Amino acid sequence: MVKLSVVGILAGLDEEALTDVERHINRKNFSAGAQMIEPEADSSDVYLILSGRVRIVNYSLSGREITLEEIGAGGCVGQLSAIDGQPRSACVFAVDDTEVAILSPANFETVVKSHPSVGWNVIRELARIVRTSTRRIVDVSTLGANERVVAEIMRRAQQVSDDTGAAVLSPVPVHSEIAGRVSTSRETVARVMGSLGRKGLVNKVDNGLHVPDVRRLEEFLSESIH
Amino acid sequence: MVKLSVVGILAGLDEEALTDVERHINRKNFSAGAQMIEPEADSSDVYLILSGRVRIVNYSLSGREITLEEIGAGGCVGQLSAIDGQPRSACVFAVDDTEVAILSPANFETVVKSHPSVGWNVIRELARIVRTSTRRIVDVSTLGANERVVAEIMRRAQQVSDDTGAAVLSPVPVHSEIAGRVSTSRETVARVMGSLGRKGLVNKVDNGLHVPDVRRLEEFLSESIH
Repeated sequence: MVKLSVVGILAGLDEEALTDVERHINRKNFSAGAQMIEPEADSSDVYLILSGRVRIVNYSLSGREITLEEIGAGGCVGQLSAIDGQPRSACVFAVDDTEVAILSPANFETVVKSHPSVGWNVIRELARIVRTSTRRIVDVSTLGANERVVAEIMRRAQQVSDDTGAAVLSPVPVHSEIAGRVSTSRETVARVMGSLGRKGLVNKVDNGLHVPDVRRLEEFLSESIH
Repeated sequence: MVKLSVVGILAGLDEEALTDVERHINRKNFSAGAQMIEPEADSSDVYLILSGRVRIVNYSLSGREITLEEIGAGGCVGQLSAIDGQPRSACVFAVDDTEVAILSPANFETVVKSHPSVGWNVIRELARIVRTSTRRIVDVSTLGANERVVAEIMRRAQQVSDDTGAAVLSPVPVHSEIAGRVSTSRETVARVMGSLGRKGLVNKVDNGLHVPDVRRLEEFLSESIH
């Protein structure tokens, strides 16, 4: 049985507190592809991801699907409705087989208010989402689709670049996942990645996508924009 | 002197706790137009807005300005850096003459952790920003600029519509403010508002912008999209 201690927002709780939280959750398993949260359902439960991976998607007024985020083991989804009592803002699907611990909104609020460290963890997690969202709003408001793909690869490379200015994104980013993240089509991502490959800015290696010189990628993007 | 009790995230604190917070803040005044937070500055202070109004803006890689939000008295800005220790994500300007109470990141964390109600208020405020951001990501990813302007007016009207299905947005929304909110130009907003006016979907009245039938506005938007 996966321990609750894998969950990021519960970090800092001692054994006794974790045992107490354990009494207030329901464990549930979802198969890959299953819908875990649907906007229409009248539920405000919080889902703590114990294992597996989930995708949060939203739909435009015209019905187009937009991937907001993918979240793996240790993450948390569904907290917005538990916090503000408003309807679900998005759908959540299991990408892989996924085990979750489900917390009712009342129990979520109790845990947050009884443990200052959990409250602070939730605040940090929401701040992370706000930063990511802000970056995306600015990108999608001001960059073309091709440039957003390059910017996404560039940012991921910047986060893992080594002393020599090279980076390996491992595993190789999935085109459909990048497409969802930057609000474009898989075909556009494939075309841009092909073009970056031909320019020698990225190349596939055994364990991932190799970016030999992150700085050159930054310059390439900067030239495309100005 | 404006009391700290106007600040939303401090709601629920008793007189004694407010007096304690008062000891940890610095009050400061900014004239309309002044820059309050600049990304380059190495500061992580939290600004509690006691009076006035501020605008949060971000810049694209190509230097274009994007308004993220305007926040009035009782609001809070600058909390992200205090929460995660990362650099500022945006600039903040005073729109009107503005008085703020400045809290250091350490004091902010102490206040949040010592008072579960403050922690919960911060969580609610961040959840509000996440919801607004998500809506905007979906809109800007899937709607044209004209449709985003209509969607913005529609959502504001939905929030204040009366029993008859009419709404008055008061004061009249400023074109430049709407433009910033939906990532388009003031000229586009002016053109769309003119068009909505000619169709009788909106009309200016003494105290604001009158939307005689919010449902008709929804139908108009729906027809533009599909």
